[in-house]
Amino acid sequence: MKNIIRIGLVQMHSSDSVAKNLANASLHIKHCADKGAQIICLPELFLMNYFCQERDKKFFELAEPIPGPATDALGKLARNNNAVLITSVYEKDRRGKYFNTAVVIGDSGKLIGKYRKMHIPDDPANHYDEAHYFEEGDLGVRVIDTPYARIAPMVCFDQWFPEGARIAASKGAEILFYPTAIGWPMKEKSHLNKIEHEAWQVIQRGHAIANNVFVVAANRIGIEGHIKFWGTSFVCDPYGHIIKKASASREENMVIPCDLSLIASMRRNWPFLDARQIKTDS
Amino acid sequence: MKNIIRIGLVQMHSSDSVAKNLANASLHIKHCADKGAQIICLPELFLMNYFCQERDKKFFELAEPIPGPATDALGKLARNNNAVLITSVYEKDRRGKYFNTAVVIGDSGKLIGKYRKMHIPDDPANHYDEAHYFEEGDLGVRVIDTPYARIAPMVCFDQWFPEGARIAASKGAEILFYPTAIGWPMKEKSHLNKIEHEAWQVIQRGHAIANNVFVVAANRIGIEGHIKFWGTSFVCDPYGHIIKKASASREENMVIPCDLSLIASMRRNWPFLDARQIKTDS
Repeated sequence: MKNIIRIGLVQMHSSDSVAKNLANASLHIKHCADKGAQIICLPELFLMNYFCQERDKKFFELAEPIPGPATDALGKLARNNNAVLITSVYEKDRRGKYFNTAVVIGDSGKLIGKYRKMHIPDDPANHYDEAHYFEEGDLGVRVIDTPYARIAPMVCFDQWFPEGARIAASKGAEILFYPTAIGWPMKEKSHLNKIEHEAWQVIQRGHAIANNVFVVAANRIGIEGHIKFWGTSFVCDPYGHIIKKASASREENMVIPCDLSLIASMRRNWPFLDARQIKTDS
Repeated sequence: MKNIIRIGLVQMHSSDSVAKNLANASLHIKHCADKGAQIICLPELFLMNYFCQERDKKFFELAEPIPGPATDALGKLARNNNAVLITSVYEKDRRGKYFNTAVVIGDSGKLIGKYRKMHIPDDPANHYDEAHYFEEGDLGVRVIDTPYARIAPMVCFDQWFPEGARIAASKGAEILFYPTAIGWPMKEKSHLNKIEHEAWQVIQRGHAIANNVFVVAANRIGIEGHIKFWGTSFVCDPYGHIIKKASASREENMVIPCDLSLIASMRRNWPFLDARQIKTDS
């Protein structure tokens, strides 16, 4: 018996105006909701521009507590559109520590889960100076029950590490959500560009296959500072088959029906999660 | 500075005659060696037909000690062709336990390493009744130093599990070799066939990317009993880019130059192995 849920995917550009980014996201979220989306994923830190390209103390001022103004605003959008929302927010916690934190907002508007990005890019030469702004996440891998599915939110660079996906699936996650901000430095016109972009898709499709889960990646689009973001947000099924992929050229919102019963039926034939001999559930 | 090694890949059909399979493999190995191959990988259990499709006591008689006649014959081929050989052999150990064991034969003809397949398909309905014939490997993941590279041999179904690849790379493996026997049951003409075949490539390419290593899969070709083997043996680089892939229709031998310096240069940009926060090296 099928168990269809409708995933909304927002691929958008962000400016340095939080108000404008929120207004833009509101439109995309509404379009998704109008098309029946139940869980909507937005890009990493979409409320702000990708400030991690340079070091400036002022950017630390963008961080805020969770819950806080950002999750309040997202909560209103979730409630108004009757949809679960996922993105990441720049968090400053009570101890004064800074994190890149995925938040899951329930469709009643309440914060129902968070996860702090564990893998932090440390590559200032290529304009990914995140280690300057974020500590490594200290919450471990989190799974969150929504009314539609058990999900695991992770963030961007986590995409390259099979362990997180494995742990999430072993805790029962059916869908992995990766709010993302990935692109090439503008200066880098390499013969490797195409291969790197392909690798980004392949490794996430691999997580889907290894764990028999759906994978959702919602990326930025457009140019900010030194970086041209890839777009090409996508959803793939437990066979690693890309169901739907956004363009590399423009903002998009889309709603993708996903049949969660595929997870169990695939596991009957390919019980990878059950058959593995080496455990990683830490 | 480049560090090119030449990998030989044999994609072949196997019959129920060990002598014929050995003679056929000898020709393929010689062709690879003539083209400069330094490490040559052959399909899983290529010395025999894929007997795991049905249960018959006689097949247990095919097992032998390691070292034993099979590794002696392989040793002679390795020495004569001055190449390292990798495949798997049906092993019966001194305790009377049966394993599907990858062997690495040095170019002097000496057995320089072995690994016992850890993940054993248990799917008699689809003619993969390996659990009837093989115990789960009890040696863990092994890395083996050859004159050309540090390698890790694993076997077929291990391909679907990221943990083994991760452990191998964390022990310094530069190339993962998977002797393989994968195909579809003839009865199964599913719309999923293409997607499953793609998944088999994607997950292995994912191991290459996650660990910045080369991956080699040498598969059977042709029909045996109920199974039509996929062929499409391949080598991919640390970006998960397939350098060379064999056909789905015929026996082939090929030699693929691989620049091992790509591993270190890729790790400078994408230090996944170093950057990961969750360890799996058990």
